[in-house]
Amino acid sequence: MADTISFARGAPSTDILPHEQVREAAQRALTDDWQTALSYGVGIGHPGLCKWVAERHGDVDPAQVMITNGSLEAGALLFAHLVKPGTRVAVEQPTYDRTLLLLQQLGAELVPIPLEADGLDVGALEGALSEGPIEFVHVIPNAHNPAGCTLSVEKRRRLVQLAAEHDFWVFEDDPYRELPFEGEPLETMLSLDGAGKVLHASSFSKTVSPGVRVGYLIGPAEEVAKLSKRANELYISPNMLAESIVLELCTSGVLDQNIAFVKGELKARCEALVEALREKIPEAVFVVPQGGYFLWLDLAEGTDTKSLLAESKGEGVSFVAGPDFMIDGGENSLRLSFAPVPADVAGEGVARIATALDKLRAGSPA
Amino acid sequence: MADTISFARGAPSTDILPHEQVREAAQRALTDDWQTALSYGVGIGHPGLCKWVAERHGDVDPAQVMITNGSLEAGALLFAHLVKPGTRVAVEQPTYDRTLLLLQQLGAELVPIPLEADGLDVGALEGALSEGPIEFVHVIPNAHNPAGCTLSVEKRRRLVQLAAEHDFWVFEDDPYRELPFEGEPLETMLSLDGAGKVLHASSFSKTVSPGVRVGYLIGPAEEVAKLSKRANELYISPNMLAESIVLELCTSGVLDQNIAFVKGELKARCEALVEALREKIPEAVFVVPQGGYFLWLDLAEGTDTKSLLAESKGEGVSFVAGPDFMIDGGENSLRLSFAPVPADVAGEGVARIATALDKLRAGSPA
Repeated sequence: MADTISFARGAPSTDILPHEQVREAAQRALTDDWQTALSYGVGIGHPGLCKWVAERHGDVDPAQVMITNGSLEAGALLFAHLVKPGTRVAVEQPTYDRTLLLLQQLGAELVPIPLEADGLDVGALEGALSEGPIEFVHVIPNAHNPAGCTLSVEKRRRLVQLAAEHDFWVFEDDPYRELPFEGEPLETMLSLDGAGKVLHASSFSKTVSPGVRVGYLIGPAEEVAKLSKRANELYISPNMLAESIVLELCTSGVLDQNIAFVKGELKARCEALVEALREKIPEAVFVVPQGGYFLWLDLAEGTDTKSLLAESKGEGVSFVAGPDFMIDGGENSLRLSFAPVPADVAGEGVARIATALDKLRAGSPA
Repeated sequence: MADTISFARGAPSTDILPHEQVREAAQRALTDDWQTALSYGVGIGHPGLCKWVAERHGDVDPAQVMITNGSLEAGALLFAHLVKPGTRVAVEQPTYDRTLLLLQQLGAELVPIPLEADGLDVGALEGALSEGPIEFVHVIPNAHNPAGCTLSVEKRRRLVQLAAEHDFWVFEDDPYRELPFEGEPLETMLSLDGAGKVLHASSFSKTVSPGVRVGYLIGPAEEVAKLSKRANELYISPNMLAESIVLELCTSGVLDQNIAFVKGELKARCEALVEALREKIPEAVFVVPQGGYFLWLDLAEGTDTKSLLAESKGEGVSFVAGPDFMIDGGENSLRLSFAPVPADVAGEGVARIATALDKLRAGSPA
């Protein structure tokens, strides 16, 4: 059988990783910045990278920024800080599986809020707020993982307003912000927030490479000070060497060149996937992604995507079944990551899923 | 006033960091191993580095090894895994301050075990075991932080035997193992353990550079599997880029060259410090370190090293006062880190402490 085509992992194929640029940046970083790159830092990480991130986000004070070993770690630190057993936390449905897991492990009471084509159903959130206080709302605003949707600017404004009125945190979990296929990134809720109720996390995993494990958190300086103190207790400082190399990519302009390149590749991959789905699995219902890595699709009611996944693996293709991203439900949904699948392979991948779907249904009792 | 001489932080001065070697290793790693260096890994980190570490430790199975973002993180993961409120954990007194803090935050019942010139007082541990079960014993066997002592081989054998008999874990926290001033590193308790009761952590912070933030944990494969799953939940994978560079330093032989260089520098710094102490603060009682970074000294009864530290800062010198490393006591003790203080500066640093001590005593009521 031909190699498995995997739409499973939210990671780019290695052919679009900027290895030569990272190698050159490592040379420069270890020539000009080696004292910082090779020494212990403190909990906030590389001060130069904090400053660059602050500038990238407009008029943010560098004291509001801390670097973490990827943005998942920023979330994990934040959750451990804010969540006790029984704390009510609103999560999008579907949402990133590791977020659900970390919150469940801490004993959070998860309040599910559905997603619409333009992101979080804000009306449903207002309903949930009327039933009791919520500590924070976890939102993936751009090119959602797994849902592929992007939160509208109107909803961003409304969410920030609600956070101020009801005194909850918005955790703006935003690793895909810099990857819209058309136009400029939308305004962050961080930039719209006048009340200091937004905690914003992002990452260089998608704009440089996942292996650098460099992410960051931005929020009120007081909260960042508490979290960076905790980071220092747990691991002294995040990776100074990788941060120094990332900073060199940022300040030299290579980052922006790479973002332009990666967006073009991802757009082509997404378009090829969408075209193949429309041709080969016409029953699939999905929001066409405006950026990022992911497409979420619903199949006909009664389809069991866990069984479909098992059948698909036999056909040489994989994805993640919907229930992994849901507190309940998701049985007839699935997530396709187009980031690892070159455009000229997408059609064959979808054809294999279509074959698996036919076989699943042929094998099932009517 | 001249620049402050700091004996405070357990970190080398930058003049002994191998920046050219790391730069060259980064070039090679990002030429030959860039796919692994720049991609997500899993919880264990770089498989090649796991394999190298396993070989470095003799006949360890690579499945017993996981890489972490520094060895402190290995400890933090392990503590969160093993400790619940009330869990009895034996700690050396004095011991590393972050270890005490992390265990206290988890609600451990700390059982203090004194240190002797040849390490942990095993008789005192036996006494504590007779009072109730202990989940694990935290031991820094080589060139102790802060105490400077090294655990004898006889005591290592006895500890491993007790662990098997009483079914407790030995957490062998061993970042200074490769830095003895004379001879080869002593046998690890990991290598002496036949019962699978030793969890061994170490690091490249002292043999390469702290900023690479690469450490590791070795233990029974079943425990390592649980901990690496947890690591994956918290941060996906540790820093793949830094690990790839460290692996290149390891396999090319540069690591061993650097260890030889660093040991020579540290030995000279330690000797200069010991000589200055004997000359300028003859009341100081201390174990002469056989390796590593630290010297622990006791001053005359009644001396308050926290006040001495305040006075010392006025003289342009700093250190860490003893109570930071103790559950109780340590008032007349302090830790000097010689790693950051070049040999030709040690005398001046000690002279300033001696002056501060004179001033403190002159200013105190008799």
